[in-house]
Amino acid sequence: MRMYDLIQRKKDGRRLTAEEIRFLIKAYTNGAIPDYQMSAMLMAICFQGLDDRETYDLTVAMRDSGDCLDLSKVRGITVDKHSTGGVGDKTTLVLAPVIAALGVPVAKMSGRGLGHTGGTIDKLECFPGFSIALSEEAFLENVNAIQLAIAGQTANLAPADKKIYALRDVTATVDQMSLIASSIMSKKLASGSDAIVLDVKVGSGAFMKNLKDAKKLAETMVRIGQMAGKKMAAVITNMDEPLGNAVGNSIEVIEAIEALSGRGPADLMEVVFALGVKMLVLAEAAADEMEAYERMQTCIASGAAKQKMAEWVKAQRGDPSYVWDTGKFPQAAYTMEAKAVKEGYIQAIDAQAIGTACMMLGGGREDKESLIDLTVGIYLTKKKGDFAAKGDTVARIYASDANKGQAAVERVQSAYTIGGQKEEPSAMIQAIIDTAANITNSFYI
Amino acid sequence: MRMYDLIQRKKDGRRLTAEEIRFLIKAYTNGAIPDYQMSAMLMAICFQGLDDRETYDLTVAMRDSGDCLDLSKVRGITVDKHSTGGVGDKTTLVLAPVIAALGVPVAKMSGRGLGHTGGTIDKLECFPGFSIALSEEAFLENVNAIQLAIAGQTANLAPADKKIYALRDVTATVDQMSLIASSIMSKKLASGSDAIVLDVKVGSGAFMKNLKDAKKLAETMVRIGQMAGKKMAAVITNMDEPLGNAVGNSIEVIEAIEALSGRGPADLMEVVFALGVKMLVLAEAAADEMEAYERMQTCIASGAAKQKMAEWVKAQRGDPSYVWDTGKFPQAAYTMEAKAVKEGYIQAIDAQAIGTACMMLGGGREDKESLIDLTVGIYLTKKKGDFAAKGDTVARIYASDANKGQAAVERVQSAYTIGGQKEEPSAMIQAIIDTAANITNSFYI
Repeated sequence: MRMYDLIQRKKDGRRLTAEEIRFLIKAYTNGAIPDYQMSAMLMAICFQGLDDRETYDLTVAMRDSGDCLDLSKVRGITVDKHSTGGVGDKTTLVLAPVIAALGVPVAKMSGRGLGHTGGTIDKLECFPGFSIALSEEAFLENVNAIQLAIAGQTANLAPADKKIYALRDVTATVDQMSLIASSIMSKKLASGSDAIVLDVKVGSGAFMKNLKDAKKLAETMVRIGQMAGKKMAAVITNMDEPLGNAVGNSIEVIEAIEALSGRGPADLMEVVFALGVKMLVLAEAAADEMEAYERMQTCIASGAAKQKMAEWVKAQRGDPSYVWDTGKFPQAAYTMEAKAVKEGYIQAIDAQAIGTACMMLGGGREDKESLIDLTVGIYLTKKKGDFAAKGDTVARIYASDANKGQAAVERVQSAYTIGGQKEEPSAMIQAIIDTAANITNSFYI
Repeated sequence: MRMYDLIQRKKDGRRLTAEEIRFLIKAYTNGAIPDYQMSAMLMAICFQGLDDRETYDLTVAMRDSGDCLDLSKVRGITVDKHSTGGVGDKTTLVLAPVIAALGVPVAKMSGRGLGHTGGTIDKLECFPGFSIALSEEAFLENVNAIQLAIAGQTANLAPADKKIYALRDVTATVDQMSLIASSIMSKKLASGSDAIVLDVKVGSGAFMKNLKDAKKLAETMVRIGQMAGKKMAAVITNMDEPLGNAVGNSIEVIEAIEALSGRGPADLMEVVFALGVKMLVLAEAAADEMEAYERMQTCIASGAAKQKMAEWVKAQRGDPSYVWDTGKFPQAAYTMEAKAVKEGYIQAIDAQAIGTACMMLGGGREDKESLIDLTVGIYLTKKKGDFAAKGDTVARIYASDANKGQAAVERVQSAYTIGGQKEEPSAMIQAIIDTAANITNSFYI
């Protein structure tokens, strides 16, 4: 088998066989195929696409390029959740304790933030002592004991995807649906859960800018998962403005704890419930979505979910007292205010600009080597649809450096569009995809 | 300027500016742009194409990546000829002395053969002592003294093209019209002649398999040349079967000398005259094509062209006595015969298979390092339209090794298609392109 022939075949619009795709991935991962041939192939795929079977074969080949987590020792139906990435997205911090508290095992591998989006692991490390470096044995023990553990992605998780993604990133071949879907799903399949619920973000702050593309991506991922024998669902959620009010590390953790205390922002809770009911139904912990919804409500109202959060932090060697007293989280040196530059209704908040402003404060990574400042962040006091008089505070900036704080104030003010007309916030739940062919809207929209 | 943005722009179907193309070529040639980004760009170009202006800019950028030959010291209008490559193509060996004998300076850089097609320089080296290693000064002196000199392509002729071609060759991005045209024309423009006549081969033995593609390539190259201020013409000639009867090195030289003696095969002479009249008219050595045609005929009939061949060989330190006594060329140890396997008319001779059979005999290069055997070859005694009884000789094989000779006999027999129906040979001159927009047929078709 020659790589040249495979490139020619794809360039001509023909299909690659499973065997050819396995060869491609194996030989590229071990260095037998050079980058310049792989980038030509990736560009040909951008123009000619991959069909369902090729996309599935690519996903499985990338999954099998490294280690796969074996969750067979976990009792019950394990369930995982993945977000395509947004600004202010602390959903996992709320959802994981709720689902675990309801008896469904959540064994999750998570990533760190990069660029304008944050990462769950960075946020968890706000709890002093919290460690994601669990042995596989300890990880599985925790899941069986408290139904919840989170670990960093191991170095050898889908290494083919890692190598291919790095190449796509420098050859303008990132935005191809099958390549995006297989990249995400190769890691999710390697993570071993029985059921996977996807949160596909759509809007100006998300990678998918419109609903059509988001649906296509969601359908492709659901189909791959189902072909691999997983229980799948995807929820397409709005990312036109940041999710919730807090953007940063410790301030997002505090907002998540507030949510577990029954005081979460409405938009965040809508996403948490939409994803949660799917997780519970797939895990057979509720007969239907209404029952799942009620179980989640009760779990939060009773304090069981917040209790689970404290158990979780403790099990991973963090200090659980912070769950009960969020005032203990260290605070940034400076608090500054971004003000409305004119009177009117908030018509839009550029999520990507807010994410970038947070990164520039030191709260995110410009590259993989960046050290991040957990205390900085942006708290949005006004969101889309709210009214502001000129000079009203629209956001508070938490900064460790006055100059950086001032720059963030300006960035945040520019991110707000204020106008005379009141615009309602977009629907948080844009679509639900249960099966590849069946797009439904759920009851709580 | 970032290569990533240029790839994205071309992928999106947008045009690259002249400045962007210059950057691309310069940075790739000096190693600042890695192969993997260039191959992604090349694949994007295969799908989105380049327009006339981009193709011209690419050609000029590649021309300017290395040395350009300065022919300003040559008296008269210099004229060059280029063939896209065929089997049995000894046209230059006939044409160059005829044109030079008619007073038009021919200052040519030529290449060696690779794969199933031969190279002019390999053939010229059949004359003992013949050298293509002329200093630039000696080269120009020869052109002024005898109107004819040929040199090997200098190492620094369009190095960008060399590097890009090597990458295209391993990434399935060879067959894109603008890339093919700019690759050829960058070298032709760097070679410095005032007028260029292109022989674009079409047919089963050529790179262009059909007339439509051949016309497109010819038009593109004529347009590039005209944009660069050159006088241009292209002739599209048939390559369904080998040109003439001889395929090999010294046997092709002998056939060329026969042609200069007035005994050339009809198909070869048709191509020689079609190209020659264009060269003479562009060089203003004839008022019209009819006059050019008559001048060429007289030049051959008078012996002036053959005399020029001897002068040329002598001027480049070869032994001119071989021109007058072709029996002096060394002969291969074995002569074998390929026979008709059944009775009938020759309906087709697979030119590529004949070229490959010659290469396998040792007459061509499998790779750039191969040493070639000048004595071996294949002489086609029957061509398309001829009748053969079963067992009649259709070709003679000249071999230095009996086993290789036997293998060639079998290859050659397989290359012949014999059938009951008489098929006329295809027209040698398929089209003539004088200007990019104006496709005419000439009088001698």
